[in-house]
Amino acid sequence: MQHETSSRIIKRMRVKFRHIPCYLGNFASMVAEFGGAFGEIRSVQVGKDYKIRDIDITVRNEEIFDQICDATRRLEGVDLIEVKDVVEEVHRGGKIEVTATVDVKSVDDLRIVYTPGVASVCRKIAKNPELRYEFTSIPNNVAIVTNGTAILGLGDIGPVAGMPVMEGKALLFKLLAGINGFPILIDSKDPEVIVATVKAIAKTFGAIKLEDIKAPECFEIEDKLDAALDIPVVHDDQHGTAVVVLAALINIAKLTYINLRRSSVGIVGLGAAGSGIAKLLSAYGVNQLHGADINEEMSRRFKELGGEAMNLQQVMERSDIVIATTGVPGLIAPEWVRPKQVILALSNPDPEITPEAAMAAGARYSADGKSVNNALAFPGLFKGALMARARRVNNAMKIAAAQTIASFAEGEDLIPDILNKEVHAAVAKAVEQAALKTGVAKTLDPDSVGAAYLANAAIGSKG
Amino acid sequence: MQHETSSRIIKRMRVKFRHIPCYLGNFASMVAEFGGAFGEIRSVQVGKDYKIRDIDITVRNEEIFDQICDATRRLEGVDLIEVKDVVEEVHRGGKIEVTATVDVKSVDDLRIVYTPGVASVCRKIAKNPELRYEFTSIPNNVAIVTNGTAILGLGDIGPVAGMPVMEGKALLFKLLAGINGFPILIDSKDPEVIVATVKAIAKTFGAIKLEDIKAPECFEIEDKLDAALDIPVVHDDQHGTAVVVLAALINIAKLTYINLRRSSVGIVGLGAAGSGIAKLLSAYGVNQLHGADINEEMSRRFKELGGEAMNLQQVMERSDIVIATTGVPGLIAPEWVRPKQVILALSNPDPEITPEAAMAAGARYSADGKSVNNALAFPGLFKGALMARARRVNNAMKIAAAQTIASFAEGEDLIPDILNKEVHAAVAKAVEQAALKTGVAKTLDPDSVGAAYLANAAIGSKG
Repeated sequence: MQHETSSRIIKRMRVKFRHIPCYLGNFASMVAEFGGAFGEIRSVQVGKDYKIRDIDITVRNEEIFDQICDATRRLEGVDLIEVKDVVEEVHRGGKIEVTATVDVKSVDDLRIVYTPGVASVCRKIAKNPELRYEFTSIPNNVAIVTNGTAILGLGDIGPVAGMPVMEGKALLFKLLAGINGFPILIDSKDPEVIVATVKAIAKTFGAIKLEDIKAPECFEIEDKLDAALDIPVVHDDQHGTAVVVLAALINIAKLTYINLRRSSVGIVGLGAAGSGIAKLLSAYGVNQLHGADINEEMSRRFKELGGEAMNLQQVMERSDIVIATTGVPGLIAPEWVRPKQVILALSNPDPEITPEAAMAAGARYSADGKSVNNALAFPGLFKGALMARARRVNNAMKIAAAQTIASFAEGEDLIPDILNKEVHAAVAKAVEQAALKTGVAKTLDPDSVGAAYLANAAIGSKG
Repeated sequence: MQHETSSRIIKRMRVKFRHIPCYLGNFASMVAEFGGAFGEIRSVQVGKDYKIRDIDITVRNEEIFDQICDATRRLEGVDLIEVKDVVEEVHRGGKIEVTATVDVKSVDDLRIVYTPGVASVCRKIAKNPELRYEFTSIPNNVAIVTNGTAILGLGDIGPVAGMPVMEGKALLFKLLAGINGFPILIDSKDPEVIVATVKAIAKTFGAIKLEDIKAPECFEIEDKLDAALDIPVVHDDQHGTAVVVLAALINIAKLTYINLRRSSVGIVGLGAAGSGIAKLLSAYGVNQLHGADINEEMSRRFKELGGEAMNLQQVMERSDIVIATTGVPGLIAPEWVRPKQVILALSNPDPEITPEAAMAAGARYSADGKSVNNALAFPGLFKGALMARARRVNNAMKIAAAQTIASFAEGEDLIPDILNKEVHAAVAKAVEQAALKTGVAKTLDPDSVGAAYLANAAIGSKG
């Protein structure tokens, strides 16, 4: 799954409407004609015979937005008061901060959180390093590590230009799972440097999230860090994406009455996302995996995972389910779609084939990347791993996350609302339990779900 | 200046006093007899004929505290209800968190802070990296880097056991200067590894604070990073301490009518703190610097700085002002004190000579480490450097910080209240101006003090 490409922008228009209902309708229709989509609409002022609204609009590019502004000025009963770059405004000064969780009101308070008081806690940790779980933020800190080589759909724009994305991940970590996300920008494309750097600073964190590092380097970096460290190392572009795709597939299987494990699954695009999806589906029990990529190296790796590499047409011909993560809009021609095929064309914002075109071509079910938000997985996946003090995130934990995410989807939705905190809490619990069951948990907090699980298991075994 | 050693602990006693005034007095006298000192005293419950108070007490060690508890139980009209390890309580879960500065209430908000909206900001920064100052937290982020080899007075306890101190620094950064402090624990004693690691992650930050890294490695690490990076790299144990000591000396000079620059200054202990003090005093214009250290290597370095290395007795004989930072309690015998000498014996909690003993031996002025809190310097010093986007922190900036700190001390105090935020704001402004005057500022924010300063200077030059 590719993220959104560079071709979408969000603007906030402040518009004054005279009190005739059709004026808003006219405006909305005009925006829709330009392919614009509406975000938040807020009333900012209500006068005797007018209303001023702030309207967020997503459009393809600046030129189209300029055309919308011109068209607005020509509309009757509608005045364009102001245009704001809402994205710039929200990003001004960055999106995260490091704050204190304790209050310091007096010099005496300071003597408790700082010298001399702090020394006694340092001594205790020096004597028993396990106490870092009690007295420091370490077990709740996650490094969000990038070298900026594969930022969103923007490609290799460097780590500094990737910072707003890393801050976005940190923001979601806190908002959805109460985790401290520390962006770490690494100024190197050399996997050895990245591995050495993360190893050197790893003791600061309870887990490492690799982010937007391009393939194939991302595989080597993750493998080496996973082997070297006793905390989870997860490349989100591979595994976070895979978890959400598996969740969506579990629900598609329910909606379409297909047996996911017995289906042949074709993966088009074997980069970080495609590769992660292949690994997780294989672990889930899917036996027939077909894959296509224009890059030989990626195909070779796919074969090592037990998949069958072939060309795009062959994948389309032989797969019950096709998952495309190429970043190439319109790659899949409608005539290649097999009757009753399930097609997930995940590249954003423009899929390899639109769900409408796929359905018209005879697909049983089709969705695009908008239906599969990969930020649904990582907060709960990491939280559960941290709660279990897991040494790594294994497939059982990812599958537990996917099943839990799937279970929260409502009606015919493939996945639940990303801002529903209950989902993330449930994912965390399921992941923690899976970690404990599969033996990757390090130690037990007596208050944790994991401890309760083991206690119950012990009671059960007495019966 | 050494920090507090391991021999002080803080406990919170919950004590019930019957309503007879002398009972509190009896209790307080008893605690004082055991050498205990009082921190915060809070009333938690007032009954008809009693009052319950939480009383924080600092004592030398656990044994003495146990004796105080026993003595409390024997006091008339006083009940010991509960004892809490207030330091443990405050540290539970750590002392810092990473939080969002923007609100996310809806999926539409999410589309602004995360994909797809964030992409436009990333593109802008990729095109013009200077925009990282506008749209990311980078210019306000400071890495607090330690390898744990010289944590407080505790020595080499490792980076993980040092985390509570790093979190304390981060807490003070936010509280006093609004800076985001990111603890970075480096698991290595090899200067090359530390330098390589910090270089690799430096783009995440506006400045690097090296912390509690032992001498002599700290010198090499700071020098190499300073040469390699275009952001400030400051080893706080050297320079933060030196700034506060210079501030104290400026005020001592006023109180005692001595000429600081023309005085001979002897430095006892030439580790990180002693060395930093020597460098800054030399830059300030002190010409006669004497130094003593049992370590040959430290003496050699001191000579390179232009100081005269000698033994302890010689330093005492030849110096108008003596500054001791050895960590060795009682090192300076009263009979070595010269009449009218100024003596700062800074090791905490037990100085090389107590102010009382030094004064009784004929000193003109004497203070210990309790009068010189080194946390006074770093928040404003870094904030000013960040405001100026300085490439480094030079001596002019440190001297400006010291002079500003000195100017805020009230009455006969050597330094001001550390929790007075006006002090830190004034230090930041003075440091920013010094950076601009001395040409180490990178670019100018048109709203900054620095820009205003230059604008005024320009107006002035027209006259």
